[in-house]
Amino acid sequence: MYDMIILGGGPAGLTAALYGGRAAYKVLLLEPGAFGGKIASAAWVDNYPGFHKGIEGAELGQLLAQHAERFGVEAKKLKVEKIDLAGSVKKVIASGKEYLAKTVIIATGTPGTLPRALGAEGEEEFMGRGVSYCATCDAPFFKNKDVVVIGGGDEAMREALHLSRFARKVTIVHRQKQFQAAPKLLQKAEAEPKIEFMLETAVKKFEGQQLLEKVMIEDLKTKRQQELEAQGAFISVGRLPDTEFLEGLEKDEKGYIITNENMETSIPGVFAAGDVRRKSLRQVVTAAADGAIAATMAIKYLEKL
Amino acid sequence: MYDMIILGGGPAGLTAALYGGRAAYKVLLLEPGAFGGKIASAAWVDNYPGFHKGIEGAELGQLLAQHAERFGVEAKKLKVEKIDLAGSVKKVIASGKEYLAKTVIIATGTPGTLPRALGAEGEEEFMGRGVSYCATCDAPFFKNKDVVVIGGGDEAMREALHLSRFARKVTIVHRQKQFQAAPKLLQKAEAEPKIEFMLETAVKKFEGQQLLEKVMIEDLKTKRQQELEAQGAFISVGRLPDTEFLEGLEKDEKGYIITNENMETSIPGVFAAGDVRRKSLRQVVTAAADGAIAATMAIKYLEKL
Repeated sequence: MYDMIILGGGPAGLTAALYGGRAAYKVLLLEPGAFGGKIASAAWVDNYPGFHKGIEGAELGQLLAQHAERFGVEAKKLKVEKIDLAGSVKKVIASGKEYLAKTVIIATGTPGTLPRALGAEGEEEFMGRGVSYCATCDAPFFKNKDVVVIGGGDEAMREALHLSRFARKVTIVHRQKQFQAAPKLLQKAEAEPKIEFMLETAVKKFEGQQLLEKVMIEDLKTKRQQELEAQGAFISVGRLPDTEFLEGLEKDEKGYIITNENMETSIPGVFAAGDVRRKSLRQVVTAAADGAIAATMAIKYLEKL
Repeated sequence: MYDMIILGGGPAGLTAALYGGRAAYKVLLLEPGAFGGKIASAAWVDNYPGFHKGIEGAELGQLLAQHAERFGVEAKKLKVEKIDLAGSVKKVIASGKEYLAKTVIIATGTPGTLPRALGAEGEEEFMGRGVSYCATCDAPFFKNKDVVVIGGGDEAMREALHLSRFARKVTIVHRQKQFQAAPKLLQKAEAEPKIEFMLETAVKKFEGQQLLEKVMIEDLKTKRQQELEAQGAFISVGRLPDTEFLEGLEKDEKGYIITNENMETSIPGVFAAGDVRRKSLRQVVTAAADGAIAATMAIKYLEKL
């Protein structure tokens, strides 16, 4: 049983973790992607107070993560599948395992931006070890490697184009007969010699020793399965609707969670911090401040239990 | 005419300045003491997110100031004497000079902690060049120098004791026949060989070329004036009551300014940020976030003018 489970490893989640950990509470942070959240894919952060020369987004994300780790926070690269916030014990299911906590801090970023999982075998196992949901975050790790992009929409094309700047070969694998991407984006991808295309093909399994080595694919017409060598797999099959995630919480018409100034949501013991909540200014520093307040209020809640 | 005058150079004020300056508005920041506000005298800041090893308070204050300066913010080491916020043009009088602005952001820290000016000749002129209101901030600049402390209360004794760790000689100058400080503190000061005492003595004038060199004092019984060699003068004659400063603004019973989540006060065009406003958590990161929000909302206000 954790004192605090924090969903999301952006500035809000990491600062909440720092404050919870520093106060010697048992904190679990769940983040499927890169630490730093949205800033992990920001080339440059110019206005986070104190880093007066500016700082690379990914670097600031790492510093924030190191800060939380210094205070003993446990962080897992897991994707949340389901949460049950109703009772006094909150349940979070990630990677098929159930985690329990007395308080939950939701810091998952702008609603509607959480990537949807593919659901293939080995997906959770290789997350962060080859499987990724964000090319802008992770593409630099795949210099001269072979990668697959799974999906057929605009974002899949963008991910593939970005990856082609690093990888040796990019194979776009898509279930349908046609790509849904805008013609212009598709043309751009087709014009890139590094990018190959596989339509009517499904990814069945991710395989490897420690790191991803192969992707098992199936031709949906012939049912023939085949192994594709790939050190990276970028899943781009859409975004989770907020409702799956934020059930039972009071939200505004755009899906932002409504909190008071203390980051308290409509459910006792559940707090929201950062871009996910209704607020007037979404910046790194305001997200971090939200995280500090949410953790402090969660601690006050814990003290009364 | 400035777009924005910011009162106070702590994390809230400096972040407001950074945001205002970065948006290319004409910003003036007034701070009589050291940049960083309360943290300038904090030995160590352990929980400002991103500085994962911790950082000296004074150093963080300097980084925040450099960040604002990078975006062209004008900062003056002046003590505010009077403000008039009622009209659409706000007036701030500091050092006998009037400054005008379309918006004002109040970021002066915890109410009741602003030092009172002595009112002696040359006091403003030598502020930051020998005259100081905070030994914890500035004592290290006076290693092996001669300093005076003006005042006779607990704080004056504490300032003198702290200064005695750096200075060659500390002279406490006080108008009254007796010190008001608690007996224990007074005994401690009397036991310190570096500290000397002058009762029934008033400071009339601060003198020097660029930096403070002498303090003109007057024996209040004999009216005889005399020069005291001193490179530093620490004024400790009490704190300004909030009302002098925050007139006309809605406050709570403890003197904190009441704002909404957008840092708007009860007066249009006047914002409050950081410790000075009623809020649940007073931390460096929450003060900085307040500053970012206040400046952003001030900009929205300016856009509508």
